[in-house]
Amino acid sequence: MSLSRRSFMGGVVSTLGYLGVRPPGLQAQVSPDNLDLDQAMRQRIVDYDEAVKLSSNENSWGPLESSMKSMNSAWKYSNRYGYPDANVLQKIAEHHGVTTDHVLLGAGSGEILGVIGLTFLEGGKKVLGVEPTFNSVFARAARIKSDVIRLSLDKDYSQNIDAFVEAAQRHYRELGFIYLCNPNNPTGMIVSKDDVKRLLDGIPEDLPVLIDEAYHDFVRDRSYATSIPYVLEGRRVMITRTFSKIFGLAGMRLGYAIAPPDVINQMRPHSIASINALVKWGAVAGLQDTSGQDWVRTKTITNREQAMADIRSLGYEVLPSETNFFMVSIHREIRPVIQEFRKRGVLVGRPFPPMTKHMRVSVGTETEMAQFMSAFREIFPQLNAGADA
Amino acid sequence: MSLSRRSFMGGVVSTLGYLGVRPPGLQAQVSPDNLDLDQAMRQRIVDYDEAVKLSSNENSWGPLESSMKSMNSAWKYSNRYGYPDANVLQKIAEHHGVTTDHVLLGAGSGEILGVIGLTFLEGGKKVLGVEPTFNSVFARAARIKSDVIRLSLDKDYSQNIDAFVEAAQRHYRELGFIYLCNPNNPTGMIVSKDDVKRLLDGIPEDLPVLIDEAYHDFVRDRSYATSIPYVLEGRRVMITRTFSKIFGLAGMRLGYAIAPPDVINQMRPHSIASINALVKWGAVAGLQDTSGQDWVRTKTITNREQAMADIRSLGYEVLPSETNFFMVSIHREIRPVIQEFRKRGVLVGRPFPPMTKHMRVSVGTETEMAQFMSAFREIFPQLNAGADA
Repeated sequence: MSLSRRSFMGGVVSTLGYLGVRPPGLQAQVSPDNLDLDQAMRQRIVDYDEAVKLSSNENSWGPLESSMKSMNSAWKYSNRYGYPDANVLQKIAEHHGVTTDHVLLGAGSGEILGVIGLTFLEGGKKVLGVEPTFNSVFARAARIKSDVIRLSLDKDYSQNIDAFVEAAQRHYRELGFIYLCNPNNPTGMIVSKDDVKRLLDGIPEDLPVLIDEAYHDFVRDRSYATSIPYVLEGRRVMITRTFSKIFGLAGMRLGYAIAPPDVINQMRPHSIASINALVKWGAVAGLQDTSGQDWVRTKTITNREQAMADIRSLGYEVLPSETNFFMVSIHREIRPVIQEFRKRGVLVGRPFPPMTKHMRVSVGTETEMAQFMSAFREIFPQLNAGADA
Repeated sequence: MSLSRRSFMGGVVSTLGYLGVRPPGLQAQVSPDNLDLDQAMRQRIVDYDEAVKLSSNENSWGPLESSMKSMNSAWKYSNRYGYPDANVLQKIAEHHGVTTDHVLLGAGSGEILGVIGLTFLEGGKKVLGVEPTFNSVFARAARIKSDVIRLSLDKDYSQNIDAFVEAAQRHYRELGFIYLCNPNNPTGMIVSKDDVKRLLDGIPEDLPVLIDEAYHDFVRDRSYATSIPYVLEGRRVMITRTFSKIFGLAGMRLGYAIAPPDVINQMRPHSIASINALVKWGAVAGLQDTSGQDWVRTKTITNREQAMADIRSLGYEVLPSETNFFMVSIHREIRPVIQEFRKRGVLVGRPFPPMTKHMRVSVGTETEMAQFMSAFREIFPQLNAGADA
């Protein structure tokens, strides 16, 4: 994400021609090496709005109708501090069958991940996790000058529980906590409930484990289960969830942790939890709207399976996914490929070292996936069906 | 703010009869000792929506029309992470004639105050400020087990600069920073630009000073000036501002600090800055809408001066105000008076020790101020005009 103003302004390759309307005076200057599309596009609304956005694991359909209705009814609180907040804390607690002292709200689960980093990495403690995984915790660790112990994924790109246990035991005294993203981002792959149990049973009891369940709502695999029951057992497990995915509220900022009350209390001093009025209402309406959630889940999985089948039929391997994104083995470096897609108006995921010969694709609407597949067919040669390097 | 569930549910005094509509099944049970109106009312929409809300220094008119329009056009980003953000950081920097590395955004200036506490009170450092003042910084200090050195206000309720300077010198080695709220909340009174200079010139150069200018936009007194120029001089001064007041966006959460770049960089590791898509657009539109700001300022000052004159004509003293609230000397303890107002559907400010015989009243619309004055006349006897105990 290191984009200098110079590289932003100094580029010569125009992508705008591919993206449709070019408003007068709006220059499109994107350096071919500039992969930070959010930064580059942030100030150019036309580019951004026209693009097929499959780069950030968002919900392309937007907030549920029920959430939109509820948020619109909450505008009257937009100028207030204390106001009826749809009882959001209580509703989340009830949803998970826990009491409110097990819940910490944050302005997105990103805040919660940051709070956990600040809480448990004090005094130079380290975090243990795999590579690649969702980078927020590791980035926060770097900001506060803490180290990360990174484990490689297995050959099949799954998270190696034995390696986790071994590293946790070996580095026990240095560790602040363990980070497990389940399902993992960017691979889309789950850790089974048996493996989660094996991990928790294998590590020192007092070592906190953060299990990031951001993509929980998309999982259908029966071998997976949420780890919230471990919280009620009193284990030092922290689960994070977000309203950014199936609920489509990423830009509105609400997430939370479920953890034992003493762990929540440890986190509180670092918490800001400055949450806007609208999203509190939107989140509660969304939680209650199971048919809206089902609709997004079904659409997402249908479109994902279709795209994965189309790609496989061209001879490319795709990792099994239980999320709203999937990863394709592209047999070449992703960096220039991102540009190839961008020229065709399609935004795909950034490089996730060391998996730089894979492309992460978020699942969008039918139209968006059709545009993506059309670009894919232009960029990649058909391989022998079923073959994979 | 200590409200137990028991006191919330167990009370017997009903206020709802005074507030209009009583929906079936919605019980109104407010303990007479319960002053935490936000908590008590939060889940009872009818009570809250019907009440005349003059307790939290909000903008009763709501967001500017220009902000509303802009926020409504930004719904399309509510499901996104990276999106065109109206260039909010750059626009705020330009507004103050500084570069973006002088600006730190927060989800409300409350986040910024928290970040400053976490940054400068590490290792048991203390904060120095007056009592009463805006409590957020001191509350944060308590959460992280830091101490507060509290100075009394002068007899005329102004902040005593000599006392600040003396205490800063005496406690220099223990201090993390100085907190100066200007204009001060809850008094509404300014510190003149000459006094700010005297303070900054009188204290050790490397002692950070946080100057909270939340109410800046309402000040008309020519002896006051923003302290942002000191930031550009390179002094260790941090200015906080908010979109919660004249811009009416309290529930949407956006504020910021202006400080020297090295100070901003010190703060960054503690910053979350998880800001929703809508308020970024609303804030930029509001900043540019000077006539909208003028309208709110004029309305606020007109209604404030009218209410203050009405109250003075009843024989009660009112502190001079340069903000969207004012403080009345009521010659009795505020606690039961809050309940008296609440029974009449009017919410006024909480106790601000040690000024517990004063009432803080936020300025609302003409209708709201008329309801407030009607309640005031019922609750308080007319004193000899001009007299004051």
